[in-house]
Amino acid sequence: MSESPRTLRLLVEYDGTDFCGWQRQNTGRTVQQTLEEAFEVMLKHPVAVRGAGRTDAGVHAYGQVAAVDIEESIPAYGFLRGLNAHLPEDVAVVELVDVAPGFDPRRAARGKVYRYTIWNHPVRSAMNRRTSWHVKPTLDVAKMHAAAAQIEGEHDFKAFRAADCERPSTRRLMRRVTVRRQGALVTIDVEGTAFLKNMVRIIAGTLVGAGLGKIAPARIDEALVTGERTLAGVTAPPQGLALMQVLY
Amino acid sequence: MSESPRTLRLLVEYDGTDFCGWQRQNTGRTVQQTLEEAFEVMLKHPVAVRGAGRTDAGVHAYGQVAAVDIEESIPAYGFLRGLNAHLPEDVAVVELVDVAPGFDPRRAARGKVYRYTIWNHPVRSAMNRRTSWHVKPTLDVAKMHAAAAQIEGEHDFKAFRAADCERPSTRRLMRRVTVRRQGALVTIDVEGTAFLKNMVRIIAGTLVGAGLGKIAPARIDEALVTGERTLAGVTAPPQGLALMQVLY
Repeated sequence: MSESPRTLRLLVEYDGTDFCGWQRQNTGRTVQQTLEEAFEVMLKHPVAVRGAGRTDAGVHAYGQVAAVDIEESIPAYGFLRGLNAHLPEDVAVVELVDVAPGFDPRRAARGKVYRYTIWNHPVRSAMNRRTSWHVKPTLDVAKMHAAAAQIEGEHDFKAFRAADCERPSTRRLMRRVTVRRQGALVTIDVEGTAFLKNMVRIIAGTLVGAGLGKIAPARIDEALVTGERTLAGVTAPPQGLALMQVLY
Repeated sequence: MSESPRTLRLLVEYDGTDFCGWQRQNTGRTVQQTLEEAFEVMLKHPVAVRGAGRTDAGVHAYGQVAAVDIEESIPAYGFLRGLNAHLPEDVAVVELVDVAPGFDPRRAARGKVYRYTIWNHPVRSAMNRRTSWHVKPTLDVAKMHAAAAQIEGEHDFKAFRAADCERPSTRRLMRRVTVRRQGALVTIDVEGTAFLKNMVRIIAGTLVGAGLGKIAPARIDEALVTGERTLAGVTAPPQGLALMQVLY
């Protein structure tokens, strides 16, 4: 049974509603643990699944990337089918391919694309409740565009991270921040090289603050210059966020 | 408190996943009953909510229409807010307006628009699982267009109804049946004057049968002419269906 070592790259989709995020932890159901358990059922031994990035509790993914090292010579397509048969309905492995042994999805990534979705309507939505943030007053999308343009580019994003984020360097490049309205749905797409903890959710909260006329352009500049968390917007709730793509 | 009689028209959105359909029944949670309970909490007396049409267990609605007769003079907007505060998160009253007393949402309707959604990909989708039917082999949308054109128009739809449907007349007019692909999502939009039990789901099953090359055009014609249920396709599962709009 034991063969030459292989590394498999997985493209993973999940509905984050009933997960305590990506990363394995002692309490609560996580995506990483759920994947590891499905591999263990198939291979009859434990394996470690490495993700391209952690997502918070309640955050979704259409394009999380993960890797596993195995020795078994099961064909990739049969493996994909077997995994999906063993996974619960809120996680799916969309793609599974052999890559260069030792592939590290986090270090190899040259960027990530996230989408934040807002349900902008006086009344809450039953159908969109699991995948959007409900904001009642009408957002001024022109003001959100202007705020997005301020956030684009390379900046010190110290003001745009969770209080318990301990990364020593807080300089990041946001390649693209775009805002679009389609009826009551307002979406914010953010593409960046790397992200701090809660960063996209705080960018979304800041853009919503701008769209409501509560956060003026000068305040966003000041947040970027001073790194003062209170100058940025609120941390938007997790269910509006989805990891769309990891770029290699 | 008691004033002149009013009829309120409600536009109702619901996620059908956890409902046993629209219509009140002795066992199981229904949308009608959930709305009636919210009204009763607000008005302190029972009210009857009349819907434009029944939806099956698991079927969603973006645009169900309902009516209630009340005597209280609560302003419509405050009523809307109060109702949504008392309703569970999978139902929302999107609009509530005063209409001519006695308005009957079912009899007054001149048509309905339904959408059926298919996730057409070799791998199931975690994010779309609650709102689509997973069909693995690639659907030939050109064949589905042709089948849709056969179904459009006025026909005897006896072959396209549930076995326990007891309507004496089975002639119906389908004003529009359109099929569209956007990536892995294939949607079927059906606008008709009125529908038989399970009719849209059987139309969807028939169009999928056509798209898979299993149901030839001659068989659809034969189903329409003979009224033989076995000639039409399977009853597509409920979670792919949504009532989009009731036309007046």
